[in-house]
Amino acid sequence: MSGFVSFVGSGPGDPELLTLKAVDRLSRADAVLFDDLSSGPILSHARADADLVGVGKRAGRPSPKQDHVSRLLVEYAQSGARVVRLKSGDGGLFGRLEEELVALRAAGIGYEIIPGIPSAVAAAAAAGIPLTRRLTARRVQFVTGHDVSGQLPADLNLPALADAQATTVVFMGKRTFPLLLAELEAHGLSRSTPALMAESVSTPDQRLTRATMGELAERLAGEVGTAPALILYGPLAEFADD
Amino acid sequence: MSGFVSFVGSGPGDPELLTLKAVDRLSRADAVLFDDLSSGPILSHARADADLVGVGKRAGRPSPKQDHVSRLLVEYAQSGARVVRLKSGDGGLFGRLEEELVALRAAGIGYEIIPGIPSAVAAAAAAGIPLTRRLTARRVQFVTGHDVSGQLPADLNLPALADAQATTVVFMGKRTFPLLLAELEAHGLSRSTPALMAESVSTPDQRLTRATMGELAERLAGEVGTAPALILYGPLAEFADD
Repeated sequence: MSGFVSFVGSGPGDPELLTLKAVDRLSRADAVLFDDLSSGPILSHARADADLVGVGKRAGRPSPKQDHVSRLLVEYAQSGARVVRLKSGDGGLFGRLEEELVALRAAGIGYEIIPGIPSAVAAAAAAGIPLTRRLTARRVQFVTGHDVSGQLPADLNLPALADAQATTVVFMGKRTFPLLLAELEAHGLSRSTPALMAESVSTPDQRLTRATMGELAERLAGEVGTAPALILYGPLAEFADD
Repeated sequence: MSGFVSFVGSGPGDPELLTLKAVDRLSRADAVLFDDLSSGPILSHARADADLVGVGKRAGRPSPKQDHVSRLLVEYAQSGARVVRLKSGDGGLFGRLEEELVALRAAGIGYEIIPGIPSAVAAAAAAGIPLTRRLTARRVQFVTGHDVSGQLPADLNLPALADAQATTVVFMGKRTFPLLLAELEAHGLSRSTPALMAESVSTPDQRLTRATMGELAERLAGEVGTAPALILYGPLAEFADD
């Protein structure tokens, strides 16, 4: 007898941004494995007798425990449980979904993937910034600002990221942003390019900071803080409010 | 007395992929303005006495009626109505959100933006393809395959789109795909790059077609069809099922 795993994107944090399908799967799960970011009120949709297992990872951030999470997932499913693997935002975007899919496939366990509202999309909506603009931003790109060791990835496509005609969203890039900006400037992007830092999007702690890229890099060179953050830059709509 | 407009992303089509917040706003609206793609069962969440107004645009596709839609939105709000402007997928991604925001701001009408599940994210989930991969696809980009006149945009960043180390999603690009591939090949991308065409994602008509980019371009050079489609390409996970 084998269980089944539903990978469920929980969205950016606001429990009202769960999909109906996510609520359905949560309410029927025997066990819910969740990361830090997707916890809190979202878990209130789970059954009172469900196992709620925090696997202690911040969204998408590398962790030595990844193997452990995959093993736990397989063990729960092999016990016959209906398992929800909750991932903040959308699991397929910097959510390390692949490692867990590989483990389930190796163990012959069935699964489904339920998409979630990506934090980048929620940040843009909160700030009133359309990610695409008809004439000025026909391309949008999401990139991670750190590699397994926490450094700026060495293999970034810098010309693509220095394109002033695209909206770029950097995930997990607060610490490395000053360095990234230096690299982008060397590829022609201006320090005066509009930027937005969005921290703790859609939660009561949400903070939106508008600045130029240069101003933001200066601020981040001092204090970084621990709140999860996205940094958007490019031809961001000028009419956006706070 | 002035109304209020909620821009609501309806997700890719499956009514179960609405967010709780979207359902709430739909259930309280006096008027719902919707595009073709976001209609059907999703509208069943609206009140029985709400005005349901089809504005006859396919998601994100340019239409001579854009001014008309903005005017209608303003008129409904100025009559004091609580208005939902339903946009398929997420309104900020190729949804021509900006034009309507500009019209509301000019008229001094309040609004909010509620993000939706982007069709690209739903397509990847349906196909079991993580959009990002830890070592091979640290960047994901969304681009439109046609401009206002329906042609391949002249200002595409072809080197960025020819990057074999990124996952690319082309919106509304079926008709122009053979031409796009020719341009990408000239910038070094191989015809054998894995691709996925996802049509009518998350609806009963969903069709996922796996092929190389070359095979897909050959197929699309013949028959294009009218179903809304996304084309994904790049280092797509090999273990993905249909």
